[in-house]
Amino acid sequence: MSSYRAPLEDMSFLIEELLEVGEALGSLPAYAELGLGPDLTTALLDEAAKLAGDVLAPLRRVGDEQPASCQEGAVTLSPGYGEALQQLAAGGWMGIASDPEYGGQGLPELYATAACEMWNSANLAFGLAPMLSTGAALAIAAHGSESMKQLYLPRMHAGEWAGTMNLTESGAGSDLGVMKTRAVPEGDHYRIHGQKIFITWGDHDATPNIIHLVLAKLPDAPAGSRGISLFLVPKYLVNADGSLGERNDVYPVSTEHKLGIHGSPTCVMAFGDNEGAVGYLVGEENRGLACMFTMMNEARLKVGVQGLGAAEGAYQQAVAYARERVQGGVPIIEHPDVRRMLLTMKSLNEAMRAFVYTEAVTLDLAHRGPESERVQQQARIDLMIPIVKCWLTEVGQELASLGVQVHGGMGYVEETGAAQYLRDVRITSIYEGTNGIQAADLVGRKLARDQGGAMQVALEEVGITVAVLVQHSEPVLQAIGRDLGAALKGVQASTDSLLQALREAPPQALGVSFDYLMQCGYLLGGWHLARSALVAQARLEAGAENDFYHRKIATCSFYAEQILPRCAGHAGAVAALAGSLASYPAQWL
Amino acid sequence: MSSYRAPLEDMSFLIEELLEVGEALGSLPAYAELGLGPDLTTALLDEAAKLAGDVLAPLRRVGDEQPASCQEGAVTLSPGYGEALQQLAAGGWMGIASDPEYGGQGLPELYATAACEMWNSANLAFGLAPMLSTGAALAIAAHGSESMKQLYLPRMHAGEWAGTMNLTESGAGSDLGVMKTRAVPEGDHYRIHGQKIFITWGDHDATPNIIHLVLAKLPDAPAGSRGISLFLVPKYLVNADGSLGERNDVYPVSTEHKLGIHGSPTCVMAFGDNEGAVGYLVGEENRGLACMFTMMNEARLKVGVQGLGAAEGAYQQAVAYARERVQGGVPIIEHPDVRRMLLTMKSLNEAMRAFVYTEAVTLDLAHRGPESERVQQQARIDLMIPIVKCWLTEVGQELASLGVQVHGGMGYVEETGAAQYLRDVRITSIYEGTNGIQAADLVGRKLARDQGGAMQVALEEVGITVAVLVQHSEPVLQAIGRDLGAALKGVQASTDSLLQALREAPPQALGVSFDYLMQCGYLLGGWHLARSALVAQARLEAGAENDFYHRKIATCSFYAEQILPRCAGHAGAVAALAGSLASYPAQWL
Repeated sequence: MSSYRAPLEDMSFLIEELLEVGEALGSLPAYAELGLGPDLTTALLDEAAKLAGDVLAPLRRVGDEQPASCQEGAVTLSPGYGEALQQLAAGGWMGIASDPEYGGQGLPELYATAACEMWNSANLAFGLAPMLSTGAALAIAAHGSESMKQLYLPRMHAGEWAGTMNLTESGAGSDLGVMKTRAVPEGDHYRIHGQKIFITWGDHDATPNIIHLVLAKLPDAPAGSRGISLFLVPKYLVNADGSLGERNDVYPVSTEHKLGIHGSPTCVMAFGDNEGAVGYLVGEENRGLACMFTMMNEARLKVGVQGLGAAEGAYQQAVAYARERVQGGVPIIEHPDVRRMLLTMKSLNEAMRAFVYTEAVTLDLAHRGPESERVQQQARIDLMIPIVKCWLTEVGQELASLGVQVHGGMGYVEETGAAQYLRDVRITSIYEGTNGIQAADLVGRKLARDQGGAMQVALEEVGITVAVLVQHSEPVLQAIGRDLGAALKGVQASTDSLLQALREAPPQALGVSFDYLMQCGYLLGGWHLARSALVAQARLEAGAENDFYHRKIATCSFYAEQILPRCAGHAGAVAALAGSLASYPAQWL
Repeated sequence: MSSYRAPLEDMSFLIEELLEVGEALGSLPAYAELGLGPDLTTALLDEAAKLAGDVLAPLRRVGDEQPASCQEGAVTLSPGYGEALQQLAAGGWMGIASDPEYGGQGLPELYATAACEMWNSANLAFGLAPMLSTGAALAIAAHGSESMKQLYLPRMHAGEWAGTMNLTESGAGSDLGVMKTRAVPEGDHYRIHGQKIFITWGDHDATPNIIHLVLAKLPDAPAGSRGISLFLVPKYLVNADGSLGERNDVYPVSTEHKLGIHGSPTCVMAFGDNEGAVGYLVGEENRGLACMFTMMNEARLKVGVQGLGAAEGAYQQAVAYARERVQGGVPIIEHPDVRRMLLTMKSLNEAMRAFVYTEAVTLDLAHRGPESERVQQQARIDLMIPIVKCWLTEVGQELASLGVQVHGGMGYVEETGAAQYLRDVRITSIYEGTNGIQAADLVGRKLARDQGGAMQVALEEVGITVAVLVQHSEPVLQAIGRDLGAALKGVQASTDSLLQALREAPPQALGVSFDYLMQCGYLLGGWHLARSALVAQARLEAGAENDFYHRKIATCSFYAEQILPRCAGHAGAVAALAGSLASYPAQWL
């Protein structure tokens, strides 16, 4: 059975030594008074680690075995989940990176990201509760009226009320334009009628109220995705003084029987089956999708973190098992192929963590950095988000599966808990835009809209790191530099090839977009790991005596030798473009 | 919901046109009287397809939702599973490739392989029942005394009695040498005492008797794996006339709660908790592992077929969904990335099928071919088996996961049935020797024992196909030839590099053995698909008007462009060898 302990050493290394949070963000007006630095980092990480390890992790198997369920219009959570949510709220974690003007903690996204990793390593099904609540609050903060923000946000940021996102309908998944839910104006509010599916944490009694954000169409709305509006639909109507009024006409109908995340109630939600659900417009009419898009980068970054979280949890359990399990007279950790699996997990986890923590800083800089840099940081985060979301969740699945494999036959037995990581993480490549959509977004929008400009900036940064590495006096770092340089060349060639294809034969570009994204992911993960190795080497040269730095360099060396070559496989697919795919008639499938 | 239909067109193409079963096997003494050829092939495939599609496939979800269970020393099967097993037996499928002298059908392994694919596409949990029964009968046929064979085999081949294999104990998984089960001589038999785990279809009442084959140690046995003997332990003792006698002291204790294959009762089995289970020695004392090894090639080939089977089932369901599901105004099959996933599934399925059907013929030739060729055929099958087992099951998992992905959110809902393919197939990379063990077997034993001799023979054959392709008048085939040639060069380089490492630094070779195996798998799969494309092209040039041939060439072209590049990714890992892995201290993990 697993007992998750947050990888605090790596986390604080990234925050303090690689990203230097104090220097990178500490002087920004938004953060100047927080005293960003080692003490705060340590305090925050320790506190989160306790919650994750002591409260959330023990509930992981509980929720899997006793799923959340729905009876007579109400959801019953898995045992302990409601109490855990209240503990999270009491710790101030629900509004950790939210606006302090409305009761948030106002900390950088970087800390929210580290905490998010811990929640999701410990318990991915549970981790969705703070994720969705935070997302809903963010949409209100960005687009709600002042009175709406005053009324709802402080309670949401305090975790007193939860939040949900209601987008999908049975006929409208990736394509939201065809949705059927209707909103009819009635005085200062609207009446909502319709059914939504796949609503994460759609109902529960862990909080006295739940604030549903719902996409719906006005009677005179234009067709398609430009005719969708966003509404705030509270479970209980809220009086002007914040007290709760009557029950609103929104109820869970059922919960899905899913492959994983059993502790997360995934609801079919009925709006307005009786008198109509009272809803309040958020933002402008017919601009609902735009409102959603403003929080998409945050949400997709967090889903990427879920991939990392599950993989870290799977790794910890696998390495513990491999030390204990004796076969052939030695613990199986001594067997070369088991060692390969574990080091694949460890090195990719560290690469993913370095990557996504870095982009959490980018997100902060895009929103709260110096005005003159925001456009550039926004271009970068827009480019990186589909890669983070897709690459981390794809790798997360591979690593969770390796975790099962390390356990041998025991990994296939549910009580061991290894298989749950695989089942839970499997959703992450589907929701918040399938990974195919991420790849199409990367190539068809992000690459196409500036003819690869933002990508070129990123690749030049990788090139600078490569130059430092290949000229380094330390042979291990030189070798890493050569491998990273080769991978960089490959991505540059793929990018050029795709840009040309986008001009000449877009379907061929889109047909290899997934391979291109994965190629970029392995390069960028390797880059951030190599940056980490350079910092570690500098510390060693400055006389630091810490095994951690030696480990970091050795882990990066393994990644360079054994993981970076995967770029070449994806490069070959991109180089061929998708001619054979585009010309293959659908009826032949 | 899935409705599996066997891919009869591709199956008979392989059997009749690529492998030319009549010419390849029809004149061998063992098969001369069967009249191998198109009529027999069609009759057999049609009959198996009916059973798979009409009987087994509808039970797939039933078994998943109502698992086999154990109460008070007896297993209750999932509804319908016992009856299905009896139908399979009535059709003569349990002994399809078994010795006709003992009631078997005496058909080539090729047909058993095609039938096995169908059972496992339709219902992987069920497919284990004939697989284990066949394996047990094979061990008895190879090593049992004449009277034992007379008594047990006809009833096992007729499916009247089932069979199981009892190897694993809680402390003895991949390393069987440390097992604790004991066998004490008592007159003409032995008394067996011990507990076995992970016993597939360990108990049920679908057949009046079950013949357990059990590994155990004699009191004076040498230590380790050279001290293990094989015993036949019937559930009911068998009188000399074949009638059933008293109940033997072997009982199921419990069934495992597993990630998948819920319809297959995976039992903890107690032998001799009371007076001791009566067992009969199979083969010689202390030679039990050798007895097991003689049937290992057959068993591992079949597990590879399970990987293919699950992937084909997943593909059929995914392509049906992709035609129906409309998003963005068109069925999602029109979206480039969905098309990529489906064609990845289809092309790899056809490559896997061509590969494993070809090696089923190799297996036949090694056992029943011309005496002068048997040594060479045995060397080839010994080399190919770890690749078939590992590559097909790894790819099977990837494709089953793609099947989920094509379904989007619906794929994560269990009732859809897509996720079950993924859960079911996940076991195949673990049992019958984990895939890590397959990779170590390929490099550490098969490659090392003849310094790559058998591999060189195989690669030369690939080279001949490459030469034909690159000189072909048809540009598509030329292009396939160039891609295949490049992949071949890569495998040759990897092989040379590994042979050198095996001499100089074996741990470095074993650390990259998995990547080497996967590299070989993608090449060999591509080779067999290219051979198929050449046959298809010849048919077209001879005036055949069948879309199937065009499809086959186009599918191969996609594989060459989009799948073969994966070889380069694995090649890079092999080229680096595992220096960074071997030097990484275990305590750093």
